[in-house]
Amino acid sequence: MLLAVDLVILTLRAGELHVLLVERGVEPYLGRRALPGGFLNNAEEDILAAAHRELREEADLDGTSLYLEQLGAYGTPGRDPRGRVVSIAYLAIAPGLPEPVAGTDASGASWQPVDAVIAGRLRLAFDHDQIVADGVERARAKLEHTSLATAFCGDTFTIAELQQVYEAVWGVGLDPRNFYRKVQGVPGFIAEAGPDRRTTKGRPARLFRAGVRRTLQPPITRPDL
Amino acid sequence: MLLAVDLVILTLRAGELHVLLVERGVEPYLGRRALPGGFLNNAEEDILAAAHRELREEADLDGTSLYLEQLGAYGTPGRDPRGRVVSIAYLAIAPGLPEPVAGTDASGASWQPVDAVIAGRLRLAFDHDQIVADGVERARAKLEHTSLATAFCGDTFTIAELQQVYEAVWGVGLDPRNFYRKVQGVPGFIAEAGPDRRTTKGRPARLFRAGVRRTLQPPITRPDL
Repeated sequence: MLLAVDLVILTLRAGELHVLLVERGVEPYLGRRALPGGFLNNAEEDILAAAHRELREEADLDGTSLYLEQLGAYGTPGRDPRGRVVSIAYLAIAPGLPEPVAGTDASGASWQPVDAVIAGRLRLAFDHDQIVADGVERARAKLEHTSLATAFCGDTFTIAELQQVYEAVWGVGLDPRNFYRKVQGVPGFIAEAGPDRRTTKGRPARLFRAGVRRTLQPPITRPDL
Repeated sequence: MLLAVDLVILTLRAGELHVLLVERGVEPYLGRRALPGGFLNNAEEDILAAAHRELREEADLDGTSLYLEQLGAYGTPGRDPRGRVVSIAYLAIAPGLPEPVAGTDASGASWQPVDAVIAGRLRLAFDHDQIVADGVERARAKLEHTSLATAFCGDTFTIAELQQVYEAVWGVGLDPRNFYRKVQGVPGFIAEAGPDRRTTKGRPARLFRAGVRRTLQPPITRPDL
């Protein structure tokens, strides 16, 4: 039995939710897109440490500065043609990022729109379509009752940028005035970052940073679709 | 590397949250209390199937009729003195149950108050204290935004019984009138079970069953402590 880690790394690019995918440079699924990840280096390597290592090797990312949580274990027999492989999947959220560098096992790494994965247009290797779907659903749910949305933003952000995160992750449009009112109604969600303003679309907007509360009370719930 | 499953099975007994523990009949941690669970039977056994098997063998429970979700993987090197063991933990919720029967590896199985585990009075084997704490926190959070509380109840229940679930899992007291208003304000959370009444404490009370919605909107949030 072999143990692996796989990474669902989400970020916002041009207002759309993207996931980092590599192109497999080895069999099985040679040439197919897949999540970054790999086997544990040895029997002594910690799972979380392996996730950090793969983030560094495959995506050139520093896990200590990212939001990172365990998504779950994927171990259905037959999910990997090489034998019994149990993969521990992690969800990572990255703020706006430079183009990723391809890692050791990967002949190419790139950000792909999550929609293309969910709609089945990319057909990832192994059970990675399912892992991406689970990661996105986790993020969607956590946006409701935690401050996870701020992990997609830089250190400071405008309310409009925060709204863009909610819209991209949930895949909906939101009314700006209503969104502003809801966000301001959650104590500790965000805090003013000082007197500076950011000018986008002509109007200077107030800057915020993540507040002290991780749990949103009241929560910000998805519109009923 | 060995793969195991461990089960955090929660239930309500006498209005208190309990977890099923076994007394270990073998080394390591001989005689210490631990979560029910065990190694996968062979390289072909599915993880979820193993969780169902352990539920049956160690707790005489039918997993198909219980709420069951994966809690996560626990794989820190050194967590098991026998070597590298990665355990996939599951959270199961059981409605009111008969005394459990001891399973094959267990010299005794019993329901213990969760408070005693959280407070460190039982000192479970391996990292099972942490797994219990994680399972309880998962249940506490899910009571807010899902219909998980109904999994603790029988097929039909009174609002007072549902309130008892919230109070036991959150470890708080709640105002009955306020609770009633909140529960009734969530469409699809519960549904009237018919004209029958259940008489407890002298007054006949209306009976409900779980409704069609798994997600509570608006959610029922924990009081700020």
